[in-house]
Amino acid sequence: MNSPEEEEKTALNDESFMKRALRLARKGEGWVSPNPMVGSVVVKNDRIIGKGYHQKFGQAHAEINALNSATESPEGSTIYVSLEPCSHYGKTPPCVESLIAARPERVVIGTKDPNPVVAGRGIEALKRQGIKVTVGVLETACRELNESFFKFIQTQVPFVTLKCAQTLDGRIATSTGHSRWISSLPSRRFAHRLRHAHDAILVGIGTVVSDDPELTVRLVPGKNPLRIVVDSHLRIPLTARLLKNQDEAKTLMVTSDRAEEEKLKALRDIGIDVLILPEARPGRIDLRRLLQELGKRNIASVLIEGGAGIITSVIAQDLADRLIAILAPKIAGQGIEAVGQLNITQMDQAIGLVFRKISRKGEDLVIDSRFRRPE
Amino acid sequence: MNSPEEEEKTALNDESFMKRALRLARKGEGWVSPNPMVGSVVVKNDRIIGKGYHQKFGQAHAEINALNSATESPEGSTIYVSLEPCSHYGKTPPCVESLIAARPERVVIGTKDPNPVVAGRGIEALKRQGIKVTVGVLETACRELNESFFKFIQTQVPFVTLKCAQTLDGRIATSTGHSRWISSLPSRRFAHRLRHAHDAILVGIGTVVSDDPELTVRLVPGKNPLRIVVDSHLRIPLTARLLKNQDEAKTLMVTSDRAEEEKLKALRDIGIDVLILPEARPGRIDLRRLLQELGKRNIASVLIEGGAGIITSVIAQDLADRLIAILAPKIAGQGIEAVGQLNITQMDQAIGLVFRKISRKGEDLVIDSRFRRPE
Repeated sequence: MNSPEEEEKTALNDESFMKRALRLARKGEGWVSPNPMVGSVVVKNDRIIGKGYHQKFGQAHAEINALNSATESPEGSTIYVSLEPCSHYGKTPPCVESLIAARPERVVIGTKDPNPVVAGRGIEALKRQGIKVTVGVLETACRELNESFFKFIQTQVPFVTLKCAQTLDGRIATSTGHSRWISSLPSRRFAHRLRHAHDAILVGIGTVVSDDPELTVRLVPGKNPLRIVVDSHLRIPLTARLLKNQDEAKTLMVTSDRAEEEKLKALRDIGIDVLILPEARPGRIDLRRLLQELGKRNIASVLIEGGAGIITSVIAQDLADRLIAILAPKIAGQGIEAVGQLNITQMDQAIGLVFRKISRKGEDLVIDSRFRRPE
Repeated sequence: MNSPEEEEKTALNDESFMKRALRLARKGEGWVSPNPMVGSVVVKNDRIIGKGYHQKFGQAHAEINALNSATESPEGSTIYVSLEPCSHYGKTPPCVESLIAARPERVVIGTKDPNPVVAGRGIEALKRQGIKVTVGVLETACRELNESFFKFIQTQVPFVTLKCAQTLDGRIATSTGHSRWISSLPSRRFAHRLRHAHDAILVGIGTVVSDDPELTVRLVPGKNPLRIVVDSHLRIPLTARLLKNQDEAKTLMVTSDRAEEEKLKALRDIGIDVLILPEARPGRIDLRRLLQELGKRNIASVLIEGGAGIITSVIAQDLADRLIAILAPKIAGQGIEAVGQLNITQMDQAIGLVFRKISRKGEDLVIDSRFRRPE
């Protein structure tokens, strides 16, 4: 039994080391999906003797990297890990076994495994070996870090983020469709980091026709996510930049049986993956079905960059989890809005969000919110 | 000559006491216009021996209240005052004379008088008496506190604040015009504090017809500003709540010579002040002219609460100084936007703002910005 003072010191230490593990975990962003980001530190006598994180999908997990980096024996140490260690064989052997072999005195876990079938098993295995286990240190932060992984593992449907850059008066383009650039360079860099952090980017064909975007990560270092274009009539010009350089970034065209055979063939001939899906209504691909298909392809997170048609459909069908609005300190007046007709007549029917994090990027404001879900 | 250490200590002290003076000054908000808010503290041996602020228009200035509250002789003290003391006879005798009579060792001034005719005279008068004077402590904060006074004193035109409550997707009402309530109770309280802080509130007749607002300060303690309705055809119903209880809050109707004589007479018969102004174009009161008229009536600040027609006109004519957007964590979809047609086709022609202060009110976000002006 420890004194209250000792317990308080332990709790503070635990939070401090877990924060360190979280910072490490974040380094894996964009590289580990569909695995979660995980960080770990090994502590002995209040000193970090090893640290690691899950760096890349298919490679060693965080705890293993932390133990491997230890500068002295981890025996009797406290091992911090932001997510419950796995107890099953996947791409790598179960981490729990390596933890047990390291003979720590205590293991501190940020949050349980979200997979209800597995949750708690790693913890039980450690306890059976007489290792003390503390669960739930900085739990909210540990869960939020991997919210897309948590959703994906529980539903097999990717986590959906909507991103739009708009003027303070809610316009994403002028009345003539002109939109470059609404936001400042720091915001556009931030938008590229978001791309890197997601497994796929999705846009409607309208955006491709009007902007001919590349949808790659250029303004920051990072990986290129899969580029997805929803194009029910397969209107995409064969000269579109999105169709070039498939070795740098892959493109997936999503269309319906309305697409002309010839265009379909032309695209497949140049190595473009084309997915044919049913329509929800004429001219509208069934987006719910699309997300399920993406889940089957191990796409755990999708960033939807527009345009207004896709954004409106996704909101109307309640398919989005997160909305990131980049607000520029500008007023454009009558123009194009991100969200179109939702058939809402009374203000209390409006779709509810929670503003989670507000930050400034250059002269702009980034409002990072989550869609409210019935509990 | 002081040592660098002593000088640094003095500078830190100066900022700390000036902060106190600023906090005191703010207590006068809503009560002192068209005078500025001013606060003052008297300090001896690093201890505050007197403090005061300008409490109400026509009553004593801050320095006098501070000196009168002093618990010991102010001789040899340092007197902090957030704005240069006046050197002329107005409603009260010049403060500079009282300061000189108090025989302080030093006077620390936040910022100079903005009136170019008077600026520096108070400072000179003090220096001539051998009193040390420091000018420009927390100068930006001291200027920003009284930005509406500064504009008014230099241009005789009131400082114009636009306020709108909107959903994240930029709607101030649904497509059917329904808007109650977009924002949360804490935001509505904040909006009432804003009313109190301004000399007048202005709305268009559309807002009166659709919402029948009272435009009084009810959710917080405070004074009721003048209520102004722009109504070129004098369409206001005689039953409108705005026309009741003129002893609690006055209403000024602004109309054109299109108004029917009979309605004009009916309004004047029930004690309503009606101002007839030329139109800028058919059906549109000349708002620039209106602001000049309000300036002549010593209205130093106007809060424009809508609707979209007035807000758009004020922005299009570059008449606004400040925009306060209350963003609710909601998506309404197609509906009514705060800002209408501005004939902007390219994004780089958009009207520029600076996001000055971002704060949360309940679940909402308040973005307090200023219109960019060419230097």
